[in-house]
Amino acid sequence: MSSTRPDRDPSRTNVAILGMGTVGAGVARLLIDHGDRTARHAGKTIWLSKAVVRDLNKPRGIDLPEGILTDSIDEVLEDPEIDVVIQLMGGLSPAREVMLRAMEAGKDIVTANKALLAEHGGELFTRARQLGRSIAFEAAVAGGVPIIANVSQCLSANQILSLEGILNGTSNFIVSQMDEKGAGYDETVKVAQDLGYAEADPAMDVDGTDAAQKLAILSHLAFGATVDWRDIPRSGIDGLDPADLRYASQLGYRIKLLAIARLVDGELELSVGPTLVRKGTPMAEVRDAYNAIRVVGDAVGPVFYHGLGAGQMPTASAVVADVIDMAVGRTPITFQTLEYFSEDRPARAVQRDVAKLRGRYYLRLHVANHPGTLAAITGVLAEHKISIASVMQHEEHEDAASAHKGTTNGDFVPLVIMTHEASEGAAAAATEAIAALESVDGTAVRMPVRG
Amino acid sequence: MSSTRPDRDPSRTNVAILGMGTVGAGVARLLIDHGDRTARHAGKTIWLSKAVVRDLNKPRGIDLPEGILTDSIDEVLEDPEIDVVIQLMGGLSPAREVMLRAMEAGKDIVTANKALLAEHGGELFTRARQLGRSIAFEAAVAGGVPIIANVSQCLSANQILSLEGILNGTSNFIVSQMDEKGAGYDETVKVAQDLGYAEADPAMDVDGTDAAQKLAILSHLAFGATVDWRDIPRSGIDGLDPADLRYASQLGYRIKLLAIARLVDGELELSVGPTLVRKGTPMAEVRDAYNAIRVVGDAVGPVFYHGLGAGQMPTASAVVADVIDMAVGRTPITFQTLEYFSEDRPARAVQRDVAKLRGRYYLRLHVANHPGTLAAITGVLAEHKISIASVMQHEEHEDAASAHKGTTNGDFVPLVIMTHEASEGAAAAATEAIAALESVDGTAVRMPVRG
Ligand SMILES: NC(=O)c1ccc[n+]([C@@H]2O[C@H](COP(=O)([O-])OP(=O)(O)OC[C@H]3O[C@@H](n4cnc5c(N)ncnc54)[C@H](OP(=O)(O)O)[C@@H]3O)[C@@H](O)[C@H]2O)c1
Ligand SMILES: NC(=O)c1ccc[n+]([C@@H]2O[C@H](COP(=O)([O-])OP(=O)(O)OC[C@H]3O[C@@H](n4cnc5c(N)ncnc54)[C@H](OP(=O)(O)O)[C@@H]3O)[C@@H](O)[C@H]2O)c1
Repeated sequence: MSSTRPDRDPSRTNVAILGMGTVGAGVARLLIDHGDRTARHAGKTIWLSKAVVRDLNKPRGIDLPEGILTDSIDEVLEDPEIDVVIQLMGGLSPAREVMLRAMEAGKDIVTANKALLAEHGGELFTRARQLGRSIAFEAAVAGGVPIIANVSQCLSANQILSLEGILNGTSNFIVSQMDEKGAGYDETVKVAQDLGYAEADPAMDVDGTDAAQKLAILSHLAFGATVDWRDIPRSGIDGLDPADLRYASQLGYRIKLLAIARLVDGELELSVGPTLVRKGTPMAEVRDAYNAIRVVGDAVGPVFYHGLGAGQMPTASAVVADVIDMAVGRTPITFQTLEYFSEDRPARAVQRDVAKLRGRYYLRLHVANHPGTLAAITGVLAEHKISIASVMQHEEHEDAASAHKGTTNGDFVPLVIMTHEASEGAAAAATEAIAALESVDGTAVRMPVRG
Repeated sequence: MSSTRPDRDPSRTNVAILGMGTVGAGVARLLIDHGDRTARHAGKTIWLSKAVVRDLNKPRGIDLPEGILTDSIDEVLEDPEIDVVIQLMGGLSPAREVMLRAMEAGKDIVTANKALLAEHGGELFTRARQLGRSIAFEAAVAGGVPIIANVSQCLSANQILSLEGILNGTSNFIVSQMDEKGAGYDETVKVAQDLGYAEADPAMDVDGTDAAQKLAILSHLAFGATVDWRDIPRSGIDGLDPADLRYASQLGYRIKLLAIARLVDGELELSVGPTLVRKGTPMAEVRDAYNAIRVVGDAVGPVFYHGLGAGQMPTASAVVADVIDMAVGRTPITFQTLEYFSEDRPARAVQRDVAKLRGRYYLRLHVANHPGTLAAITGVLAEHKISIASVMQHEEHEDAASAHKGTTNGDFVPLVIMTHEASEGAAAAATEAIAALESVDGTAVRMPVRG
């Protein structure tokens, strides 16, 4: 069941890369330029036999030895000498079909494709077990931060109690820039695109999809929960108003796109969304395109990880560590023991009803500047048994910010309320009722508060 | 070569704990109370067969099933059914002899004893390889933070460029408390002892020995260097003056006991000592008894780890993860491949001459309050080609701090100088020359500055 079968040279593991884009070229560079390093850690040579692309003429920014580049996947699948396929095409198709065919051809898989695992993990992992193959996927979550190995191996003595993180570097870059520069959302997205931190279409990054897919994978590893990422309540940072970053800051918080999984009364609370995080805590101070994850285990307590969640070489670092683990034989053991995404293993935690999630909330309203307003709003909150921690009323007319929505406009002024702990259900209902009040104009902004 | 031999039950790994002190009792608790968890991660039962102590009558704070507790090490060594010995006695002897005997009796070893590894690692690891046994030691460095696995496996695609960390929780607790409370060293040590963060004799913790031993182990894993911890230039936080914490703070820094290893021109720069770390960086904000490590890899970039470096359950978390890795068969692979502390593997990096280390420095002097003083001091620095980044002269007479040395005393006033980059050799020579000036009174305090 190990990746090296008796008919193969035990002093060498042959690998092929499918897809020589950003990550693939980085992996090729590590394998070709640093063979001594991989050999030292694997106890054998790791040999790049083939690299498959669609377009043979596209420049790859790396000198590949003669005979490696090919546009034929079959050349890889039909080569019995190739042990490991490093699957670095993006998207679901043909990535899924190619991965199935590679396993059927007897190859173990290393991949960075989180979307594929989030959609078809169950099928792919089950098929791998049937075929006696293994799949490694460290690079699929948090890029260079080895959170997969840490959650499934290093912290294996623990019942993990909670896991929360900044799992999308693009969103974090945008939010940090808006925060530091006081800039608007749209212009900051353009900056991120120019610097290569955001794709031409950043929708999946900024709307919380990517973070939810990663959270679904981590939730499986940490809690044994089988979650469809679509079932994770999520919101993104798209359209985030700089006014909220400012008010949060005045209250001692930063806003981060946080993915949260935590056990509450044996159920798993899951969410992805912009969240107020107290300044000075490590999570609040995560900047630029960095990722961070805080895991709390019942034995170890809190462990915090911080590093680059994407980019060519950080991601390649995770991929090549997986290749080494595969070649040396650790991955097959881990894969067979943990039975990831096995339909035979009962789920160890079920997802908690969204309405039952509890937390404190930040509310930003746009309210009529007359005496009865506050009474009406606090009345609604009281009706829903939500108590108020603080109220901040602004009358800013002067600064540039008045161009944004959410600041003063005629007789309407921004009102910011921080609540004490309440259920998501009550908070949602109260917010809806408040937004419907005559003295409240426009959409109410509501975000959870941590720390 | 794996820990489970054919004559043993493959569905079960039997283990024995030697030493039921703080850590041993925590490990027993995890193994006994959470057998389901360990079985899930190991794919088999991990069975606690024996627990060895000196004194059978001492309360252990845990209910051990009948027949487990014994005061006879031989009962463990002579039991062929026991696969893994969890070695949790402290000290060098009889720990070393017992470990050798256990390996000779065919047992694999999990240990938390960093002092033993720092002193006898070469001998113990070589003997293990001769006997086909494995040694796991995650808990020996940074307690619950799984830095051993991260450096030797998760980041294996990288050439590690630098590694720096807060590796001694006791020292960090003391320094953080002094910083936050403005308290003196001796009274803070008492607080730490009362709260269980410092032992009755905290010498090895506060003088930098413990951090140097851990740094020696990490340097071997990360850089392939074989370093005697005694050869690491080190100073401790014993006798740290609160005045330096105050001045550092005014300059935008905190003082931390930092262990540093970094490659410079192919040589390994190593040091342990109180260091000024810029406020707002993750390392500066590590508080209480936490540990933290920042590793920079050439592919992954910086990865930062933060967690509890000691204490019963965090340390037990690391020990039990090792037991699982041993039982499942990952450790034997890792151990055989990486050949830790092998005399056959040439050292990949040699230690750089201390005098060649380069950095910026903080100097605090006690100088005569008259016109020529500054000229004399800056003259000495210029002679050693050290340029000055800033000078801060204090005339504090008013506050409680005047009770401490290093503050005003008669006509002497404190003078703080921050230098630009200089070599350790030049900085040491200049400091000595300055301390000998007539206008300078008492010892000059000198610390490196990071970030
Ligand atoms: N970039 C990151 O920082 C990062 C981080 C973590 C995870 N990931 C994941 O890693 C994977 C790869 O990302 P990337 O950024 O490297 O993508 P990319 O730059 O778009 O590269 C994709 C590569 O796949 C090749 N390819 C696509 N379809 C193919 C087909 N049918 N046959 C043969 N080759 C095909 C492309 O070939 P051509 O070049 O010839 O078009 C290209 O070389 C994705 O799943 C992504 O989510 C990326
Ligand atoms: N405590 C931590 O947070 C921590 C963290 C990381 C690493 N470590 C390391 O872990 C190891 C254990 O630490 P600890 O704090 O648990 O120490 P501890 O509380 O002092 O316990 C030591 C245990 O060893 C037993 N022992 C000592 N000599 C023995 C002998 N000759 N025969 C049989 N039993 C013997 C003692 O038995 P009696 O109880 O009968 O005297 C005691 O149970 C040390 O190497 C330490 O450096 C500790």
